[in-house]
Amino acid sequence: MSFFEAHKKMIDEAIEAARSRAFWSPFSEIPSRRIYGDSAPDDGEAAFLKLLNRPFEIDQPTTGEMVGDENALYGTPLGIQYPAPDIDGIITASQTAGTAWANVPFKERIGILVEALVRLNHRSFEIGHAVMHTTGQAFAMAFQAGGPHAQDRGLEAVIYAHEELSRIPAPITWEKPQGKRPPQIVHKAFHARPKGIALVIGCNTFPTWNSYPGLFASLATGNSVIVKPHPRAILPLAITVEVLREVLAEAAIDPNVVTLAVDTTDSPITETLVSHPAIGIIDFTGSSAFGNRIEQEACRGVRTYTEKSGVNNILIDSSDDVKGMANNLALSLSLYSGQMCTTPQNIFIPEGGIQTDQGHITFDDAVRQITEAVSTLLADDQRAMGILGAIVNADVRKRVEDSQNDPGVALMARPIVNPATGKICSYTPTCCVLEASDTAVYGQEQFGPLFYIIRTRDTDHALELIEKLVREKGAMTFGAYSTDEAILRKTEATALQGGVSLSCNLTSSLMVNQAAAFSDFHGTGANPAANASLTDAAFIAGRFNIVEIRHDNS
Amino acid sequence: MSFFEAHKKMIDEAIEAARSRAFWSPFSEIPSRRIYGDSAPDDGEAAFLKLLNRPFEIDQPTTGEMVGDENALYGTPLGIQYPAPDIDGIITASQTAGTAWANVPFKERIGILVEALVRLNHRSFEIGHAVMHTTGQAFAMAFQAGGPHAQDRGLEAVIYAHEELSRIPAPITWEKPQGKRPPQIVHKAFHARPKGIALVIGCNTFPTWNSYPGLFASLATGNSVIVKPHPRAILPLAITVEVLREVLAEAAIDPNVVTLAVDTTDSPITETLVSHPAIGIIDFTGSSAFGNRIEQEACRGVRTYTEKSGVNNILIDSSDDVKGMANNLALSLSLYSGQMCTTPQNIFIPEGGIQTDQGHITFDDAVRQITEAVSTLLADDQRAMGILGAIVNADVRKRVEDSQNDPGVALMARPIVNPATGKICSYTPTCCVLEASDTAVYGQEQFGPLFYIIRTRDTDHALELIEKLVREKGAMTFGAYSTDEAILRKTEATALQGGVSLSCNLTSSLMVNQAAAFSDFHGTGANPAANASLTDAAFIAGRFNIVEIRHDNS
Repeated sequence: MSFFEAHKKMIDEAIEAARSRAFWSPFSEIPSRRIYGDSAPDDGEAAFLKLLNRPFEIDQPTTGEMVGDENALYGTPLGIQYPAPDIDGIITASQTAGTAWANVPFKERIGILVEALVRLNHRSFEIGHAVMHTTGQAFAMAFQAGGPHAQDRGLEAVIYAHEELSRIPAPITWEKPQGKRPPQIVHKAFHARPKGIALVIGCNTFPTWNSYPGLFASLATGNSVIVKPHPRAILPLAITVEVLREVLAEAAIDPNVVTLAVDTTDSPITETLVSHPAIGIIDFTGSSAFGNRIEQEACRGVRTYTEKSGVNNILIDSSDDVKGMANNLALSLSLYSGQMCTTPQNIFIPEGGIQTDQGHITFDDAVRQITEAVSTLLADDQRAMGILGAIVNADVRKRVEDSQNDPGVALMARPIVNPATGKICSYTPTCCVLEASDTAVYGQEQFGPLFYIIRTRDTDHALELIEKLVREKGAMTFGAYSTDEAILRKTEATALQGGVSLSCNLTSSLMVNQAAAFSDFHGTGANPAANASLTDAAFIAGRFNIVEIRHDNS
Repeated sequence: MSFFEAHKKMIDEAIEAARSRAFWSPFSEIPSRRIYGDSAPDDGEAAFLKLLNRPFEIDQPTTGEMVGDENALYGTPLGIQYPAPDIDGIITASQTAGTAWANVPFKERIGILVEALVRLNHRSFEIGHAVMHTTGQAFAMAFQAGGPHAQDRGLEAVIYAHEELSRIPAPITWEKPQGKRPPQIVHKAFHARPKGIALVIGCNTFPTWNSYPGLFASLATGNSVIVKPHPRAILPLAITVEVLREVLAEAAIDPNVVTLAVDTTDSPITETLVSHPAIGIIDFTGSSAFGNRIEQEACRGVRTYTEKSGVNNILIDSSDDVKGMANNLALSLSLYSGQMCTTPQNIFIPEGGIQTDQGHITFDDAVRQITEAVSTLLADDQRAMGILGAIVNADVRKRVEDSQNDPGVALMARPIVNPATGKICSYTPTCCVLEASDTAVYGQEQFGPLFYIIRTRDTDHALELIEKLVREKGAMTFGAYSTDEAILRKTEATALQGGVSLSCNLTSSLMVNQAAAFSDFHGTGANPAANASLTDAAFIAGRFNIVEIRHDNS
């Protein structure tokens, strides 16, 4: 039985879910022994530990050197060395493998990719540890976002590719009447021609979640892929590449369809790969500066799919559950120390205060309820560490330390010490209260545990500021609280005009940061934060072209 | 009854045709009184003549000046003056109209566009004359390509937009189980947000056929459009804009959804429009130099769809109908004086000759059969003029005149005089025989009635040369003649590798130049001749983004 047949039920359900966008997730987000097996947590951790302090073997063209310089954010140095890629060799191997891969019938490709996702799912605990130690995410998030949620996103991309490829017309005999003359009879066949080689550039914070959509979309559409992990978060993608190559080899396909190109912070290879003429597609997650650089490659016909940075905003107009709102925001602001691209940064509140279920409350009251909710949430150091995880790099650390002296500080950061190492691993968020005119501060992305509450004249004023920010700086998310239907309609219009998705009145367990595969689109591609959306038709359709072969049979 | 309901049958048939790509055309290509009405030819000509030597009224923001400097390729000066656009005014008007247009339900938009296409079809004779006089096409082609075939392509784009927009998920209440806690219940709605303003830049040779796909695709996906015709071929697009504005106004929609931005050769406005920050989409047909300039706008997130120039090739390996082949090529090479982007330029023949139904024939024999077929086809001046039409500009004229002195001339051009004007309007094609090493000549696009026959070592050699040309110079078409299945498979592989569509063994009435809407894809987007294909999903999907609005109802 082919992999496609073996996974037919999952594929059919996924197609239906992608169409209806009703809740569906094939890979359980709960790190439970009942679901993943009694020994899964221990086996996963053991497997992770076994990888440390040794070479990670991948049989692909290499210079012979071994490199590796990963984060050790929980005090455990990874000490893993990866084969340094011979770039010309990798490109050539990728081209050769890609030519054959393009000719594999697309359902066969899709079967192989689903099988790989299922095997990755079985390694979710191991991947969870790899993600935790390289990104600083607490284990619960690292498991969830790095494992099943990333796998869901990968499957979503595969399914969207299945939909696009299924729409390519079948071969046909075309018959055009010619009046009294015999008809034109032409046999026509339509082939999807991949654009490849595709380059996937991973980020430090979400190495799998942000890479899987592009990786699996490119593979499903017949492109060979070179995976270039962030030099500080290699292992999660190395495991991914290993699993893909294993399944490819079992299917008697050249495993160089997927290769791993590791580099170090000191000796980066990204620029060489990005500007290589053999690269036809680039998926990138990272800084705006480098993302904008990558988008320049579009000028020579490279398809670029970027997720860069932005400034995410929350509008508070009124609320019928101010406590729920404050608690919901507190968790959104704190999760992974504010290091998600979807974390809110700016909260806009009218200077005259807001109507709530507690009656009218003043601006200062509103600020206090939010900052107190953050303090309460993170009061216990151990619990705080489970929510905040670790700061991913020295820049973020410095930013939050410096912010203590900022004007308008309404909530001071508190260092959280990892008891295992005795060192500070993160900080509870700083909050500063700013005026609407302080755009120099809140108009820039301040990545990390740092948020602003901005005093506006009124809600219309806030909407104006937000639309301008979204258009100029970009945004991945936008949240709003209002009990007034007219204000909600106006806020929706602002979201549509600005080109950012909107979450209204989140007061329970759903966070504005969260985007579920098969239902929520992640990013819109309509503002400067990202030129692509996970996953819409545009994310897939550009990865191949249609070449027609016709034979005159008149 | 809405326009959508009124045209439901045509729309349903079109959807089915786009899926199956079996023959279907709603707009008859035959300029017959029986089909278009007894008085249609005369009425159309009269309507055209009535437009001459007077202002063309369009009620849109203007500087107050009137401009116009169109071709008069059959001796009739058009003398039409158009309102010069006030560019800032047009942009503002387009933005205002676009905001409302985006909110019109997409089926309503599609109904309006189909109605406009039907009305344009009723004006096909008038448009045929406008296309003939501005492009130099003979009337039969001007009617067919400028009228019904362009309308078919416009409808195809509308239908592809219908398909893409239909795939956007309907609003849904998403319910995620939360174990023992109550489920997350979230209402989600998904909105298509147009990228607009869209700019459509027309070309001199096919002002409607090449502009309609982008124009109608952008309109259908909710973008307002500014149409910038070539300064020498304005009238066909002015009529198009007039019809669209008329239908929009009847539907009580701001007609500035479509505006016309006319300029002159001496005082061009294209660069100002292309680099304007309000432009989000550009469709362009024209030179590679300016097309490459336009693709630079992709770096700032503008979606560009370009058709530029290339070098089209024919491989001759063998034939079981050498006479049919020669006659077919003769017409392909001669139609509209070789001024189609799809006209073959280079014919590759092995030096050892070819196997045919006439037995083995030498290289020189093969050359002679092709050049004789051209001479025979165009022996009669009046018939020649009906096939060749008129040379579109002085550059092409100079190129063909200069080519008489080229080395290897195997067929001299013969001037064709338009009896109505007593002036040369075109030339029968020049043919030069070249060596494979003469890439400096045949490796460049030589637009106009000029083709090359290139001597190769063998068929493999020809395939190598062709693949290199396609990759480096681009190609819109590729034709091959062979009776050998293995050679045909190899040729197909070359076409796929190079990224160009292939037509095999055309010996009857189908020309390699021809691409039928709803069946043939025009261009692949996979080689430098064009970054887009008419019409695939990628041609539509980038014209809008999806913005999600979710409300927590937990």
